[in-house]
Amino acid sequence: MEKTYVAGVDIGGQTTKIGIVDRDGAIVAQTVITSKYAADEGEIFLTSICDTIRDLAKEVGMAAVKGVGIGAPNGNYYSGCIEYAVNLPFAKNSKVPIKSFIEEKLGVPVTLTNDANAAAVGEMTYGNAKGMKNFIMITLGTGVGSGIIINGELVYGHDGFAGELGHTKVIRKNGRRCGCGQEGCLEAYCSAIGMAKTAREWLETGKYPDSPLNAVEEITSKDVYEAAVKGDQLALDVFQYTGTLLGEACANFIAFSAPEAIVVFGGLARSGEYIFGPMRTAMNANVLSVWKDKVAIVPSALKESDAAILGASALAW
Amino acid sequence: MEKTYVAGVDIGGQTTKIGIVDRDGAIVAQTVITSKYAADEGEIFLTSICDTIRDLAKEVGMAAVKGVGIGAPNGNYYSGCIEYAVNLPFAKNSKVPIKSFIEEKLGVPVTLTNDANAAAVGEMTYGNAKGMKNFIMITLGTGVGSGIIINGELVYGHDGFAGELGHTKVIRKNGRRCGCGQEGCLEAYCSAIGMAKTAREWLETGKYPDSPLNAVEEITSKDVYEAAVKGDQLALDVFQYTGTLLGEACANFIAFSAPEAIVVFGGLARSGEYIFGPMRTAMNANVLSVWKDKVAIVPSALKESDAAILGASALAW
Repeated sequence: MEKTYVAGVDIGGQTTKIGIVDRDGAIVAQTVITSKYAADEGEIFLTSICDTIRDLAKEVGMAAVKGVGIGAPNGNYYSGCIEYAVNLPFAKNSKVPIKSFIEEKLGVPVTLTNDANAAAVGEMTYGNAKGMKNFIMITLGTGVGSGIIINGELVYGHDGFAGELGHTKVIRKNGRRCGCGQEGCLEAYCSAIGMAKTAREWLETGKYPDSPLNAVEEITSKDVYEAAVKGDQLALDVFQYTGTLLGEACANFIAFSAPEAIVVFGGLARSGEYIFGPMRTAMNANVLSVWKDKVAIVPSALKESDAAILGASALAW
Repeated sequence: MEKTYVAGVDIGGQTTKIGIVDRDGAIVAQTVITSKYAADEGEIFLTSICDTIRDLAKEVGMAAVKGVGIGAPNGNYYSGCIEYAVNLPFAKNSKVPIKSFIEEKLGVPVTLTNDANAAAVGEMTYGNAKGMKNFIMITLGTGVGSGIIINGELVYGHDGFAGELGHTKVIRKNGRRCGCGQEGCLEAYCSAIGMAKTAREWLETGKYPDSPLNAVEEITSKDVYEAAVKGDQLALDVFQYTGTLLGEACANFIAFSAPEAIVVFGGLARSGEYIFGPMRTAMNANVLSVWKDKVAIVPSALKESDAAILGASALAW
């Protein structure tokens, strides 16, 4: 049998990663192009994506590339458009019909969704969720994203925008302002930025005069992690708080879709038990008895550098 | 073409409603039998259900009955068993294999799930959710139940117990104790019993000396509704609080599955705008802008007296 491939395209605010991937998740060719195109340059960008895919596919032959998967901010599965994506100037005030454009140019089917959804499909195709039919992927990065798999399929919902678990509310009143304009969102507390902000806020109370983080100019989640490893009480308390909020939120998600596992991806997931410990405790303390100690918390198996392309490519199979 | 029917069986703590239903949701025959069977009488009960179905089917002919749908507390779709249902003595400490038993006796396929899930399928088959592929059914009765439809299918999850939205947490700290043993569950506040409890608690503060509810011995949600209609401030405040909590919870559900509508069933739903008004306001205040004023709140179209049989029967189609 002829070996087949798909192309994975991950569109970010700054750059777009493109790769050619085989069935087993091996990236046989990849590159990075800029995403910085102005409002009237959408077509140039889309053409550039097509040219890049053709170029990368030269070695395996374009005929062996059977589809293209695209993960993009505000990528809508149903419409096939990138819709009003604030961080992408070429799509900020419009719907860019990326699916139909690339299908026409390359003559292969194109599947579009947002990056967190793509990560979930990537995990199911190549990663730790292989064989799982019901799980929730949580991506802890600059924001908190999610992709929900029910019965082996990604949940898109009525409008294509399902799975925005980062914007469920974890604090009811006087919650922290989130980038989305709401208050008290999970993302405002449990993203890398949210956790760093908690550390800064708590330092400002003056209750942790001995924390080495007092000496750090711009605290990041990485600084908090490194301080925790050294036993800093502030850092340990921040992990406890962040993990607890995340676990409480996951308990609510479990009541919704009764998943087999919560798969966690992204920078914060690398903090291991510092975040997973309190997360697991809070999750199990807040679910019905039928789910206590039954739902696994699993770190993603995808290497962060490859995950974007793999996730996007997985959509295409 | 021969006209076909299904049997609907709704098992409650006290009684079991059984009916024969046609495609359009007309109940052509129905009756009620007792559910009160002891731990060692499960088989007698199951035999009684089979006999009752055969008896009810006499007029249309048993051959025209193509399936049986059963809604039961802790009814598990996957295992086909009623599992450890605290309010059903015959199934309190065991798994009762109701699906296989009835299939063997009657020779037609049997579908089992819990009552709230059955209500959702009933609404999709005969009610206001006809034609909808993504919606969430919330049943506001003694408890708060839910059934979630995604892509035209009921969500069962990994273990068959998905859709327990009544046990998502709406109050994070020092929440009210729920029947499930947890604290702060939606059900503890937004069930008929929860709402009546809120009224009693607020009366005890002494802040509503003029409320006519002070004179009521055992306040029910119906009392609160009637007081609200007469303009009682306590009752209006209780509806405001209850509806707000419900709307906030629904905002989180929307972030999960992006439904077209929230369909509300049960006693409290009959309070109309007293509950829907604050619910709608809180829901729209807590969703991402993409969903603001986009998700409908729809009262169930099923008559309460028929809903149990219709919901159960709908599973069988």
